[in-house]
Amino acid sequence: MSKNKIYVIGHKKPDTDSICSAIGYASYKNQTEKDEYIPARAGDPNPETNFVLDKFDIEKPIKLESAEDKKIILVDHNEFKQSVNGIKKAELVGVLDHHRISRPETQKPIYFHTEPIGSTSTMVAEKLMNKNILEKDLAGILLSAILSDTVVHRSPTNTKKDERIANKLAKKLKIDIEEYGKRMLEKKSKIGEKTPREIVLGDFKEYEMGENLLGIGQVETVNPEKVLEKEKEIKKEMKNIIKEREYDLLLLLITDLLEENSKVVVTGKTSEFEKAFEVNVEDQNAFLEDVLSRKKQVVPKLEKQFK
Amino acid sequence: MSKNKIYVIGHKKPDTDSICSAIGYASYKNQTEKDEYIPARAGDPNPETNFVLDKFDIEKPIKLESAEDKKIILVDHNEFKQSVNGIKKAELVGVLDHHRISRPETQKPIYFHTEPIGSTSTMVAEKLMNKNILEKDLAGILLSAILSDTVVHRSPTNTKKDERIANKLAKKLKIDIEEYGKRMLEKKSKIGEKTPREIVLGDFKEYEMGENLLGIGQVETVNPEKVLEKEKEIKKEMKNIIKEREYDLLLLLITDLLEENSKVVVTGKTSEFEKAFEVNVEDQNAFLEDVLSRKKQVVPKLEKQFK
Repeated sequence: MSKNKIYVIGHKKPDTDSICSAIGYASYKNQTEKDEYIPARAGDPNPETNFVLDKFDIEKPIKLESAEDKKIILVDHNEFKQSVNGIKKAELVGVLDHHRISRPETQKPIYFHTEPIGSTSTMVAEKLMNKNILEKDLAGILLSAILSDTVVHRSPTNTKKDERIANKLAKKLKIDIEEYGKRMLEKKSKIGEKTPREIVLGDFKEYEMGENLLGIGQVETVNPEKVLEKEKEIKKEMKNIIKEREYDLLLLLITDLLEENSKVVVTGKTSEFEKAFEVNVEDQNAFLEDVLSRKKQVVPKLEKQFK
Repeated sequence: MSKNKIYVIGHKKPDTDSICSAIGYASYKNQTEKDEYIPARAGDPNPETNFVLDKFDIEKPIKLESAEDKKIILVDHNEFKQSVNGIKKAELVGVLDHHRISRPETQKPIYFHTEPIGSTSTMVAEKLMNKNILEKDLAGILLSAILSDTVVHRSPTNTKKDERIANKLAKKLKIDIEEYGKRMLEKKSKIGEKTPREIVLGDFKEYEMGENLLGIGQVETVNPEKVLEKEKEIKKEMKNIIKEREYDLLLLLITDLLEENSKVVVTGKTSEFEKAFEVNVEDQNAFLEDVLSRKKQVVPKLEKQFK
């Protein structure tokens, strides 16, 4: 009997956790099951991810243009809106994730596993370590993904489990988490070279809430001034994007990783945003104290408002 | 800090797996986490479940009339249609299940774990055994639930994992699986005393498929003749039920556990049923060779047809 080919793939506009958890989970499945598991990606790696893959000498996954008629495992998301094109015509055979459950559907029972923790790569690393089959280079990219998604354990989504697993990986690799983490965060912040469109859509997610379609971009930076220099052009570009894509609300979170707050540029249904966060929006600008996480601090409040 | 109360609860019209996996998973969580986990049920236990709880001297879970404003873990289902009343106003904090994924939704990330296996109790027993915290009486009801849901490993939903876990439990308890399983199956078949309405709605589930609402009842029996004696009254009752509840399609599967097939009584959109299974329905009757499982053999085909 020939092996089934199963693609393991993260969300569109992949971040380091989406790329590295796909590589790691495919490795886990290949070592423990009979089918052929192929790590894939739904877009190009960002500069941080490229830095991580280069450092640990791991090949980037193949790019999948469409999931149609393929067997698919989703990592780092379960909302089809965020998936590779063609997902509704694919056979979904598994999910490994750490986000809220967003109305996924399958025709048959599958392996579906989410946890309320900081990073999908934490779950992947745990599975590999439990079976004693985690190689050093893979440990390196998984540690990087955990530190990226948890902002070196500073994000409100971070848990003790993320720290416990990251510490084990760092010990194995003899890496200093704070020092290495800081170097990675800097890679995230290369804003100067980007166009306004790249800034808004670089780390971007779509959400369906009730009858509304939302788009939320996020820039995580240690240097928010660099982004704000382009404020006018960004606002102009966001007006183009909201028309093009017919969003009801389009946000850009400019998240200051050191001060631990977010400036938000708001377009579309501004009064809904104001109600959701009990803040005023002036000249499209809002300020959210202590807000670092789109997933845990922004999306739930909007969900509630738009329900 | 006071403990949170979290209710662990299976589907409406609970079967043995729904009741026993709730008891078992609550025990697991109480032994491994800080909050208070309370096993609950969304309906009365059937005669088979009562037999099992009596035999191993385990109390039946409390009945929850509404989940509103409560913290809830769902076991043995993830389709809100099948849940205890008020589930949409509850806080869903976890899911442990072995059914298809049916558009569940949460506002925050949670622990959500499904596997394509024969019984939720297999997953619960595995978790307890992995931590070495499974007591004998609990092992007894979990073994019973596995044998019930897999029809003593004869169901097409049965997997090697169900057998491996069941064998470990049986060894611990010194129980002969075939002999004990047969005694349990007999408890399932006490049809003679039931009204037509109890027969149709006894083991009953609702499904939303596209724009359609379906209801599917199932009688698993070693004595289909006993059910068919009441065929006329059952058909009459099904016409009442389909009107009352506005189903597009209402089915009763009369599943012969020994011959491994199902007779089906069909009301509503009959031609859709005929297309889905490529069979003829005559005088509301259809016959499905080798069909034992509502979940794995009936629901997927209807899903496809109604999509």
